[in-house]
Amino acid sequence: MVDFLMNIELHQNSTYQQQIREKLVELIEQDAFGDKALPSGRKMAQLLKVSRNTVVLVYESLVDEGFLIARKRSGFFVHPDLLMVQRLPNSVQKNHLAETPNLNQPNWSKRLQKHPSQLSTLNKDENWSKYPYPFIYGHIDVSEFPLYQWRECSRIAESKGKLHEWVEGYIDMDDPQLVSQIRQQILSKRGISADPDEILITLGTQNSLFLLTSLLADKSVTFGVENPGYANLRHVISLCDSPMKALEVDHQGLKVGEQLNDCDYVCVTPSHQYPSTVTMSIERRKALLEQASKDDFIVIEDDYESEVNFIEKPLPALKSYDQDGRVIYTGSLSKSLTPGIRIGYMVADRSLITELRTLRTLHYRHPPSNNQRITALFISQGYYDSHVRRMRRTYEKKWLQMQQGIEQYLLNCEIHSTPGSFCFWIGLPKTITSHKLREVAAQQGILIESGDTLFMQQDAPKNYIRLGFSAINIDKILQGLAILGGLIAQLERKALNDKTA
Amino acid sequence: MVDFLMNIELHQNSTYQQQIREKLVELIEQDAFGDKALPSGRKMAQLLKVSRNTVVLVYESLVDEGFLIARKRSGFFVHPDLLMVQRLPNSVQKNHLAETPNLNQPNWSKRLQKHPSQLSTLNKDENWSKYPYPFIYGHIDVSEFPLYQWRECSRIAESKGKLHEWVEGYIDMDDPQLVSQIRQQILSKRGISADPDEILITLGTQNSLFLLTSLLADKSVTFGVENPGYANLRHVISLCDSPMKALEVDHQGLKVGEQLNDCDYVCVTPSHQYPSTVTMSIERRKALLEQASKDDFIVIEDDYESEVNFIEKPLPALKSYDQDGRVIYTGSLSKSLTPGIRIGYMVADRSLITELRTLRTLHYRHPPSNNQRITALFISQGYYDSHVRRMRRTYEKKWLQMQQGIEQYLLNCEIHSTPGSFCFWIGLPKTITSHKLREVAAQQGILIESGDTLFMQQDAPKNYIRLGFSAINIDKILQGLAILGGLIAQLERKALNDKTA
Repeated sequence: MVDFLMNIELHQNSTYQQQIREKLVELIEQDAFGDKALPSGRKMAQLLKVSRNTVVLVYESLVDEGFLIARKRSGFFVHPDLLMVQRLPNSVQKNHLAETPNLNQPNWSKRLQKHPSQLSTLNKDENWSKYPYPFIYGHIDVSEFPLYQWRECSRIAESKGKLHEWVEGYIDMDDPQLVSQIRQQILSKRGISADPDEILITLGTQNSLFLLTSLLADKSVTFGVENPGYANLRHVISLCDSPMKALEVDHQGLKVGEQLNDCDYVCVTPSHQYPSTVTMSIERRKALLEQASKDDFIVIEDDYESEVNFIEKPLPALKSYDQDGRVIYTGSLSKSLTPGIRIGYMVADRSLITELRTLRTLHYRHPPSNNQRITALFISQGYYDSHVRRMRRTYEKKWLQMQQGIEQYLLNCEIHSTPGSFCFWIGLPKTITSHKLREVAAQQGILIESGDTLFMQQDAPKNYIRLGFSAINIDKILQGLAILGGLIAQLERKALNDKTA
Repeated sequence: MVDFLMNIELHQNSTYQQQIREKLVELIEQDAFGDKALPSGRKMAQLLKVSRNTVVLVYESLVDEGFLIARKRSGFFVHPDLLMVQRLPNSVQKNHLAETPNLNQPNWSKRLQKHPSQLSTLNKDENWSKYPYPFIYGHIDVSEFPLYQWRECSRIAESKGKLHEWVEGYIDMDDPQLVSQIRQQILSKRGISADPDEILITLGTQNSLFLLTSLLADKSVTFGVENPGYANLRHVISLCDSPMKALEVDHQGLKVGEQLNDCDYVCVTPSHQYPSTVTMSIERRKALLEQASKDDFIVIEDDYESEVNFIEKPLPALKSYDQDGRVIYTGSLSKSLTPGIRIGYMVADRSLITELRTLRTLHYRHPPSNNQRITALFISQGYYDSHVRRMRRTYEKKWLQMQQGIEQYLLNCEIHSTPGSFCFWIGLPKTITSHKLREVAAQQGILIESGDTLFMQQDAPKNYIRLGFSAINIDKILQGLAILGGLIAQLERKALNDKTA
């Protein structure tokens, strides 16, 4: 029996108690001890090279939780109730290497009504944090997370008196405190005034867009989308078989006028056009809303990146100019706080919110109630605001470093970035493809994103990249850009040589 | 300025510091102080009738977070940076009482492709916790939540060294530790052996069913559903326009044979048929799987209530007998732990899981990573298992009380409940409708559910009720049933009198 335990290799990632406890629970579940005594505290301590006290504390807590019983003078035993539990055999013997295929297996590919995995997506690298120079977008620098403040709010939400407020779940509702804090402290800063029943909490902007298209899209309904633009927006629209129209964007943002005529919905990113970062001018915003009323279309505003915008006087949201209730507004805490907790919000006409809420109930009920409550506390105590202020200062410094490095090292490139955005949108010299650069850069520890999948058309330019800087450490920025610049120059020379050869 | 502060009415639900802090943040955001000093600590303490120290601690923490600055000998002031922030006007003046309707407003009802709010649902009462006798289903008794254990795991997940494991989010993946714990400690107890890539974490069973129908349903695909059965399953199927077939159920569970012939998918609740609580016999299970292979249909197993089943030797999941990969398995922690955190799981063929995972990414990315991690720790430390064991004992006692009370007080009723289920399914005397009883019971503080919406057909029996007992305190059970029995007898007499009159 001692042999089993010899397998615990204690590491430094969690406490010894926690590791020993986890291993013992696993062994008890596997019925490894039977009705025999566990090794004495002293013996186990010797085996594992930990203090006897550590082992005794684990044993005692396992007694408290009903896994063990202590018998006087004979030590600790697995609780008899656990020994009586029927061990279910795995009725099915898995045989992945079966020589003869099982002809009774269903044909899944025939049964799938949709093939989401065939939708092309950005080639995000799961191992991005292992690269020294992760110029990627949509991730956050963990060291900036306001850990102590979050933990304090989590502690408050998990206090005995507060528990009932979230443990029961909300059925189809949201935490009224979170709705109230988002109204007062987040929407108001974007110039938006909304009643509680005009707001729905979602699992982030992706989820807001999905709920919206589920309700509004259909093959007879045309969605206008910015091109280049957010690929996963196009994917949710295509799941609903709605026709899409690629909309042109210029230095003022989405172009209004004729191209919007035949759209039922126009999806737009006015704060910073995704991915070119252009901020839509006020004139454009007003013209867009006028045309929406005239041509009877709805505008879906994705106000991403607005929170951490370090511009002194950012433009208010498009929604704040909306007199006719034609703008559906989406925002989230994914970029300003963390994408892990999955908190977003939507503002729209109350009749639409009512339907979206019922739909959300059928999808997944509500965003987890504990996270809603912790976030509400986090905002109410001023932590969100002070975090956003800190982030703004950090991002401003980073953006300036990026700008300096790009101008210095990325020669012959077309450069787009608006102050306050989280990325630079770069047109490489036309002889270089983004895929090639991405490949050689990765070998040097530099992770960049190819812009190909952000364009809608098949024959889109292949020479765009996006350089994000939210995840990279500020001290690495210049160094990384210098190397990247060298690689671009190298590829350019090679292309020239190939041509002349 | 002092006037503003007079409005804080301190209550006992949270600490004074927290309340004062929240109010001050709110006032600062509203620019209530301008460039004037805040009231001194002493003055504020007098005003609010709290200790000076409490106020000073709040002031100091607001200095730390950049809301205030301290000036020597003149007190605390709002940080000058905050005064410079542009206050956005609400560009749109809302006028709900406008005499002339705005003709430019969009016609939302025309734009909705679906009308989820028109789907009939169970009449759940949001204020259920205010009833002394809540005989409802699907809620938990908060006092049973393993608070200290959950808090410990939350503290571990939120420690500095662990933060990066969830703060970044998982993009399209799940916490590998949670997947591993669910495999080892939950699925294994149901007789299911699954590889990690055959498992998807979801936001509960409702979400699993929604993801499945999104991928598999279509107007050419027939879903067989138990009748009576889970209403929200029918609703997600109807969102996809798939035809549904009502399937008959008897004392052994779903009837196999001819009625399943023309189904592409058969949705079933073998542990306890929803809502009649019948456990499907082994013979029936085997026959169902045989027919699935023969007639090429897929079985969707909702294994709800299996975890807290207090039967000594529960039957393994239907999935554990599945040789041909024809069973899709869904489970969740909503009933065994809390519906608030929204954690469920699905087991299916790996090719299907791959597509479901991509679809999930487009819907909402992943269930929040902090909750995944806390839950993984909670299971690994043995807390889930010991909680489930405690719950089993509690539910067994409650079930026995229910049985005793129902037999004693609910005369002339048809009674269904299988040991280990969380509710009793009751056929009232035919002269009484469930709606009438629900109405008069509510007046006596008794909350019951009408069974009407669980039947699929329009002309379904109107005399079924469901009595859940997960939320009600055990000491209230007999008392509540006695009153309910009296009401049933009264309604019966009234019906008899009306008839003879």
